[in-house]
Amino acid sequence: MISPGKGFSRVTVHRFTDGDLINQKDAVAVEEPLEIRLEYTVAGVLQRLPISITMRTPGEDFELAIGFLYAEGIIKNREDIVEISYCQGEELQKYNVVLVKLADGVGFDPKVLARNFYTTSSCGVCGKASLEAIDLKGCDPVSDVDLGVSSNVLRGMPNTLREKQGLFERTGGIHAAGLFNTSGECLLVQEDVGRHNAVDKLVGQAFLKSMVPLERHILTVSGRTSFEIMQKALVARLSIVAAVGAPSSLAIDLAEKFGMTLLGFTSRNGFNVYTGAERVRG
Amino acid sequence: MISPGKGFSRVTVHRFTDGDLINQKDAVAVEEPLEIRLEYTVAGVLQRLPISITMRTPGEDFELAIGFLYAEGIIKNREDIVEISYCQGEELQKYNVVLVKLADGVGFDPKVLARNFYTTSSCGVCGKASLEAIDLKGCDPVSDVDLGVSSNVLRGMPNTLREKQGLFERTGGIHAAGLFNTSGECLLVQEDVGRHNAVDKLVGQAFLKSMVPLERHILTVSGRTSFEIMQKALVARLSIVAAVGAPSSLAIDLAEKFGMTLLGFTSRNGFNVYTGAERVRG
Repeated sequence: MISPGKGFSRVTVHRFTDGDLINQKDAVAVEEPLEIRLEYTVAGVLQRLPISITMRTPGEDFELAIGFLYAEGIIKNREDIVEISYCQGEELQKYNVVLVKLADGVGFDPKVLARNFYTTSSCGVCGKASLEAIDLKGCDPVSDVDLGVSSNVLRGMPNTLREKQGLFERTGGIHAAGLFNTSGECLLVQEDVGRHNAVDKLVGQAFLKSMVPLERHILTVSGRTSFEIMQKALVARLSIVAAVGAPSSLAIDLAEKFGMTLLGFTSRNGFNVYTGAERVRG
Repeated sequence: MISPGKGFSRVTVHRFTDGDLINQKDAVAVEEPLEIRLEYTVAGVLQRLPISITMRTPGEDFELAIGFLYAEGIIKNREDIVEISYCQGEELQKYNVVLVKLADGVGFDPKVLARNFYTTSSCGVCGKASLEAIDLKGCDPVSDVDLGVSSNVLRGMPNTLREKQGLFERTGGIHAAGLFNTSGECLLVQEDVGRHNAVDKLVGQAFLKSMVPLERHILTVSGRTSFEIMQKALVARLSIVAAVGAPSSLAIDLAEKFGMTLLGFTSRNGFNVYTGAERVRG
């Protein structure tokens, strides 16, 4: 079933409707593991370390890897990366391992990463501790980002995003993340079976285009917002996140603490503003 | 905002609709970290080990912990568990750490768990390797499970599930998993911000009620199906999974390899059968 680099796959399904059974062709979103490996030098010695494995939709794997590394604070700008490539292995996994070579002097400490992945064990297990862990990663609030968007523009974003979702159109089962400007133009779109992957791909693509930090942009997501999504947006200094779905309590807490504007249930008909309403123009 | 043990939280939102702005109260699904710790004895020495941290909706934390341990193959029956409790810490994290004491002789090897979490690194990174890793965990196919369900019963399940979703009703943003019998009765329902957590809670609840293996039951999920969801269902020996959303390619591959019946886009109007159509009665 696997077509490396292809986001969807064709299958035959039995469709049951009122009293009828028909066989038809259907397209499904591809889900495959991706391993991200780092190559870096410590005290003159070359190291290679697998740092993450995620189930993703193949297609924009370099963007996904870069977005992930940026969200984790491992890379900060283009110069931190020397090379991005697929690790060539046996045929089946040919496109499932991405190797990122870091520049000399890019301070990567595996212990810090372990701590990021397991933030709460050192400082308590609760939402408050999770939010404090972001402080520790050195994320500044975006309270001072002076961005205003009209409510009409915001209401149009989900439709624009949907129109650009090629894989959703085909499969009906995939998340999207879109990067918009304040005029409502959609500049970048990414899709993935995992909503956090869609955001990593989008921010990674912006990173590779030297567009970050994204202080003049708006993130639109097709689904719900969680702590993780908001954290990734914050690292990229996105001050406005407009979601088609609902936010979680911790997504709202994070948005509030770091001065972000968070919208939920965004559609042509309206939206809810959970935090940072001052950026919405009537 | 945090109310321990409570699945939703009340917030004030600004609602923008056509030309109008109103302030209203809204309920949002709570998202909080949960740490699962194991207590077990190795060569007479008591060990305590945090093995997982997940962002979940508080409420059925013991069920979640047990369902997770069962899915990972760490516990197999009720006798494997001596006690389940919250680790009492400071006030804020009081309900966010669950300690599971394993019975003497329950063979737990942290190395095996590390391998489970990172299956693909040892045997290649691709969908095929991910499926083989399940074989290695000792999961038998459910091809021999002789279960038949009428298409009318299957079409009714999503509505029944939705009616029982208390948190979705309130928040509009939460996943559900339901356990049904072949007559279409909904026996158990669980909700969570994470769809894998909803399934863990459901299977954990069934486990604590000594209902597993679930060979006579059907799993219904409110969202999409991924590799992870299907793997959890397989461990519990659920042979039919009916999803409201779309499946991923790897969910279909897993279902096919292990003889499971997988439905997608299930609604009152019909459904798609991706694998195992022989269990669906016309």
